[in-house]
Amino acid sequence: LADDWRPERVAIFGMGQVGTMLGLRARSRGFARQIVVADPDPGALARSRAAGLVPDHILDPGSDGCDADVIVLAVPVPRILELIGRLGPHLTGDQLLIDTGSAKTVVVEAMRAIPQEVHAVGGHPMAGTEIPGATGAKAELLEGAPFALTPVRDDPAAMARARTLVEALGCRPVIVGAEEHDRIVARTSHLPHVAAYALTRVAAAAGDADAVANLSGTGLRGATRLASSDPSMVAAFLSANRTEVRTALADLRDALDAVEAALLDGPVALAATLAAAAGASSETSRPS
Amino acid sequence: LADDWRPERVAIFGMGQVGTMLGLRARSRGFARQIVVADPDPGALARSRAAGLVPDHILDPGSDGCDADVIVLAVPVPRILELIGRLGPHLTGDQLLIDTGSAKTVVVEAMRAIPQEVHAVGGHPMAGTEIPGATGAKAELLEGAPFALTPVRDDPAAMARARTLVEALGCRPVIVGAEEHDRIVARTSHLPHVAAYALTRVAAAAGDADAVANLSGTGLRGATRLASSDPSMVAAFLSANRTEVRTALADLRDALDAVEAALLDGPVALAATLAAAAGASSETSRPS
Repeated sequence: LADDWRPERVAIFGMGQVGTMLGLRARSRGFARQIVVADPDPGALARSRAAGLVPDHILDPGSDGCDADVIVLAVPVPRILELIGRLGPHLTGDQLLIDTGSAKTVVVEAMRAIPQEVHAVGGHPMAGTEIPGATGAKAELLEGAPFALTPVRDDPAAMARARTLVEALGCRPVIVGAEEHDRIVARTSHLPHVAAYALTRVAAAAGDADAVANLSGTGLRGATRLASSDPSMVAAFLSANRTEVRTALADLRDALDAVEAALLDGPVALAATLAAAAGASSETSRPS
Repeated sequence: LADDWRPERVAIFGMGQVGTMLGLRARSRGFARQIVVADPDPGALARSRAAGLVPDHILDPGSDGCDADVIVLAVPVPRILELIGRLGPHLTGDQLLIDTGSAKTVVVEAMRAIPQEVHAVGGHPMAGTEIPGATGAKAELLEGAPFALTPVRDDPAAMARARTLVEALGCRPVIVGAEEHDRIVARTSHLPHVAAYALTRVAAAAGDADAVANLSGTGLRGATRLASSDPSMVAAFLSANRTEVRTALADLRDALDAVEAALLDGPVALAATLAAAAGASSETSRPS
C-alpha cells in the first residue's frame, strides 16, 4: 500500500515556526503537488509568506472538512486536540493525519477516537529555533533531524505513510511509543525550557539591571536561550505533559542536590561528579 | 601617572583558553612590545602556539620572580592564589598584577597580602567558549566584552593601569567590588554551569542511550553546552565561590518551585509566569 501512495495535496494547519518549516521543506524537496495552509491569524500567514512559504491555496481555518491527502496539525497541543475533534469525524481512509506537538500521549488518545479507517500518527520534529513564529523558521535545521512518530493503533499503512512523509522532508523517522516519548522529551526538551526560565529569573534578581548585564557573558545567553520561546506555546506543552514534567523536575532537584553535596566534599570530588555528568552527555549526544 | 604608563613586556601565566585569548589580543592590537608566557604543561604551550600565539619568550613557570611590566595570572583560582603567594613578595611598584579568575573575593584577599607598592587588581574577562583550553580560544569574542575589575586597595594608579590594559585589549572595563562580583557571577555564570551538568545528568538517565539521543534536539544542546567545560576548572571556581553558589542554588530551587506552582494553576497562569521571567531576561540582556 505505502509504495503506491502518491500524495497530491498537503494541508498544514498552523503557520507558526514548525508549520512554516515543514511547508518550506515539502516545497523545496518536491513532496506533493500542492501545499495548502490554514491559520486564523492573518499576521501568521503574512510572516510565513515573508519566510518564503507561498501556499497554493489558503483554507478556511474554521471549516469542518479537509480533502488533502496529508493533513499536518502544526499548532499548540490544545489546538491540536480541538482540530482532531473537529476534522476527525469527516476524514476518510485515503488521508494521513499527523501532528507536530511535543506532548504525544494526549494527542494519540484523541486520535484513537476518530474513525478507524483514517490513517493517523502522532509526530514530533526535533528541530527549531527559540525565535517565536515563522520569523524563526530555519527549514535547513530539519535536514537529518529526528522526527518522532508515535503509533495510534495497529495500522502499518499509517506508519508507512508517515515514514514516507518524514523521509521526503529529509528528516530521520524515530518510531517510539507515546508514553516513552513523553517521558524522554520531558527531560531532553521540556525540563531545559523550565530551567532556562528559572535561570533567567535568578540572574535578573542578582543585582541591579546594569550590574547584571555587565557581568553576563556568552555562557548565560546560551543557557537561557530557550526562555525566548513563545511563553504560551511552552506553557501549552508543559501543561499537556504535566505529570512527566513534574517527575523530571524532581530528577533535576536530585541532580542539583548531588552537585551541591559534591561541592561540600571539595574540588576533587566535585570535578569527578561533573566529569561523570559530562561523560553521560557525550554518550547520549553521539551521532547515530 | 597612568597617562605615562607604557608597558614594554607582558607576562601571561597559563596558556589555557583565557591566557591564549588575551595574548592573541595583546599581540593583534599592539599592546606592549613583548609577550612572554609560562605554563608547566608543554601540551598547553603547544596548543596555544597552534592557536596562533607565538610568544617572544617562555618563562620558567617555577621561578619566584618576574620582571614584566604587566603580569596576568590566567590559571584556575587555586593556582592564582599559589602564584600570588609565590610571585607577590618579589614584585615592585613598577608592575601591574592582574588575574582572570571567575571568583574574586578570595583573589583580592590574597592580593592584599603582597607589598603595598605593587599595583594589583582582580580581573575577570566575561567571554569564552565551552571548548576547554587554547583549542577553544576565540580571541574575537573579547571585542567589546565586559572585563570586570575588582579593586584590591585604595590605589587609583592600579585601577588606571588595569583600565588601560583592558581597553587596549578592546574589552569594556566594569569596575565592581569583589563581593558584588561574586554574588552576581554566581547567578550569571556559576549557576548556569551547575544547571548544565544537572540537566545533562537528568537527560542521560531518561532512557536508553539511543532513545535519548534520538529524542534530543538543538534546545538540549544549547542548554547543556556549558557541561562541556573543563570539569576541574569549573570545580575550582565553584569551590572558590562556594557560599554564593549555594545561595544561588537555593534561588534556583525557589524559581523552579514557582514554575511548578504555576504549572499546577494551568496553562494561562503558567504562560504569565514564563513571560514575566522572559521579560526580566530582555531587560538584563539589553546592550549597554
